[in-house]
Amino acid sequence: MTERELIAAIRARLAREDRRIELGIGDDAALLAGGSIVSVDALVEGVHFDRRWLTWEDVGFKAYAAALSDLAAMGAAPVAGLSALILPRELEDAAVLAIVDGIAEAADAFDAPIAGGNVSSGGVLSITSTVIGRADRPITRSGARVGDGIYVTGPLGMAALGWRLLARGETKEPFATRWRRPRPRFDLAPQVAAIATSAIDVSDGLLADLDHVCRASGVGAAIDIDEVPVAAHQLELARSIGEDGLELALTGGEDYELAFTSADDDQATKWGARIGTIVERSSASVVDREGRAIDLARRGYEHR
Amino acid sequence: MTERELIAAIRARLAREDRRIELGIGDDAALLAGGSIVSVDALVEGVHFDRRWLTWEDVGFKAYAAALSDLAAMGAAPVAGLSALILPRELEDAAVLAIVDGIAEAADAFDAPIAGGNVSSGGVLSITSTVIGRADRPITRSGARVGDGIYVTGPLGMAALGWRLLARGETKEPFATRWRRPRPRFDLAPQVAAIATSAIDVSDGLLADLDHVCRASGVGAAIDIDEVPVAAHQLELARSIGEDGLELALTGGEDYELAFTSADDDQATKWGARIGTIVERSSASVVDREGRAIDLARRGYEHR
Repeated sequence: MTERELIAAIRARLAREDRRIELGIGDDAALLAGGSIVSVDALVEGVHFDRRWLTWEDVGFKAYAAALSDLAAMGAAPVAGLSALILPRELEDAAVLAIVDGIAEAADAFDAPIAGGNVSSGGVLSITSTVIGRADRPITRSGARVGDGIYVTGPLGMAALGWRLLARGETKEPFATRWRRPRPRFDLAPQVAAIATSAIDVSDGLLADLDHVCRASGVGAAIDIDEVPVAAHQLELARSIGEDGLELALTGGEDYELAFTSADDDQATKWGARIGTIVERSSASVVDREGRAIDLARRGYEHR
Repeated sequence: MTERELIAAIRARLAREDRRIELGIGDDAALLAGGSIVSVDALVEGVHFDRRWLTWEDVGFKAYAAALSDLAAMGAAPVAGLSALILPRELEDAAVLAIVDGIAEAADAFDAPIAGGNVSSGGVLSITSTVIGRADRPITRSGARVGDGIYVTGPLGMAALGWRLLARGETKEPFATRWRRPRPRFDLAPQVAAIATSAIDVSDGLLADLDHVCRASGVGAAIDIDEVPVAAHQLELARSIGEDGLELALTGGEDYELAFTSADDDQATKWGARIGTIVERSSASVVDREGRAIDLARRGYEHR
C-alpha cells in the first residue's frame, strides 16, 4: 500500500456519520457540533527534526505552533491545547523543561493556553499536540470553485531553505528562525475566512497542499509559478548551496502561510499574493499557466 | 528530580489563569468554558504494553478505551476523539489496520466517534488519544470532604492479575480480557456524578489514585482493606503464581473502575461498594481502618 492508500484505508475504518461531528477526518481540523474545531499533530525526533538543529525550546515551540497552524487554516482562533510528551528515559530533566518552556512560549505567543496533557516514557522523543479552537465561519479545503483566484499570505520556501542551511551547519536568518519558530497566521485568519472559499496552511509544500484542496474540492489549480512569493535573497542563497529557491517555494513546506481561494479578488489581494486560478480538474490537479502538469515527482515531502 | 517533581515543574511552567479554562492541568481531564471536557493519553509499546500479550486489535481498543476512561472519571459522556499514531516503518500495513480496527471497535462500543487524527512514522509504536466529552455536572478530584464514604464501582486487581498471567504465557479469563479490553464505566458515570463529591478512575492502582484524590482535596482516606472488592477466584489464582491478589487490588491499576466519594451513603451504595471513609489528612494520605499507614512502597506503578 502507498502512504496515501494506507491513510485512506485508516479513514474508511474510522469514519462514522454522527450528528456530533459536522466535519470529520480529512480536513486541517475537525468541526464538532457546537462549533469547536479540533486537531492533533505530532513532532517526532528523527522524522520531523534533528536535535542538532534546534534548541530544546525550539522543539517545544515548533511542535505546538505547527499544530496550532491547523486552526488558522480553518479560519479559527485558538481556545486551548493539550500536550502529550513521550520522553526517552535518558533525556535530562533540563531538556524536558526547556521543551516545556518552548511550548509555553508558543502558548503565550499565540494565545493558546495549555489545558492539560500527558507525560509518558518511550524510546523516541515525540510531542503530540491537540489544539482546540473556534471559528465564526470555518473554512474547509472543499469549497474552491472554478474561476476563484488562488492566494498565499506570504513568502514560501524560507523554512525549507533555513532547514537545508542548518543541516549544513549554517544558521542564516531569517531563514533558520522561519523553520525553527513557525508562526501560524492567526493575525490574518479571520480576514481570510471572511472572503475565502477554501483554505489550507502550507505545511507539506505548496503543490502538495494545493493538491489536497483540489482533491477535496473536485477542481484543478493553475499556478503562475513566477508569481509565487519568495523572500529577499532566497534565490541567491539557495543557489549558493546548489538548491533551487523557487522549487523550495513550491515543494518545501513548513512555512505555515495560508493558501486560500476566493472569488473576491479585490478583498483577497489585501491579504495574499495572487498566484493562480482554480480551473476544471484535469489529470493533474496542479498545472502551470499554460495548463501543463507541474512535475509532481518534485512535490513536497508527505509527512507520515 | 523525582517523577512527581518533574511533573509538578512541567505543570508550573504551563499553567495559566485563563477565562477559557475552568479547570486545567492536574485532574483526570480539563474543563473548558462552555462545558467541553478534554483529555489526552498515550499508549507506548514497551512501556504500557508488549505486543506478545495483545492482538493488534487489542492494542487499538485498549489505547482508546483507557483514554476515554478519563471522561467517565469526570462524570462525562463522550462526544468524539482524535487518534494520533506513531508507526515504526517496519510495522506491516495489516498490523496498522488491525490497530485502527481496534480503535474503531472501542469508538463504537463507547459511542465516541473518531473525528480526526494524525499518522506519523517514528521508531517506537505509540497511540495518543485525545478524548472530548461533556458533563452536566463534572466531578473533579478535589471535592472529597471529611466524613464522606469512599466507594468503588467494581472488583479491582483483575487487570493486573490478567497481565501477570499473560506475561507467564497463561490466558485466563475474565482476567486477560479485563487487561486487554478496558471498559470505562460510562454506564455508571452519570449516576455516580449525581451523588459524588469527587471521583477518579482506577488506572494507576487504588492507593495511588486515592492519593491523587486526597492531595487534590486536602484530606486523607481510611480504607478497610477487607472491603475492597475482588473477583471470584482472584485470590487463589494470584496465589498460584506467587502473587497477593489483594495487593493487586490495592496497587494493580488498569481496572478502570470508578473510585468516588460521597456524603450520600444510601445512594452511593447503589453504584459502588463502600471501602472506607474520608478523614483528616495526616502524614500518610491513605491509611487503614486503624489509621496506620499502608505501605506505599507497594502502591501502584506510576505511569510515566
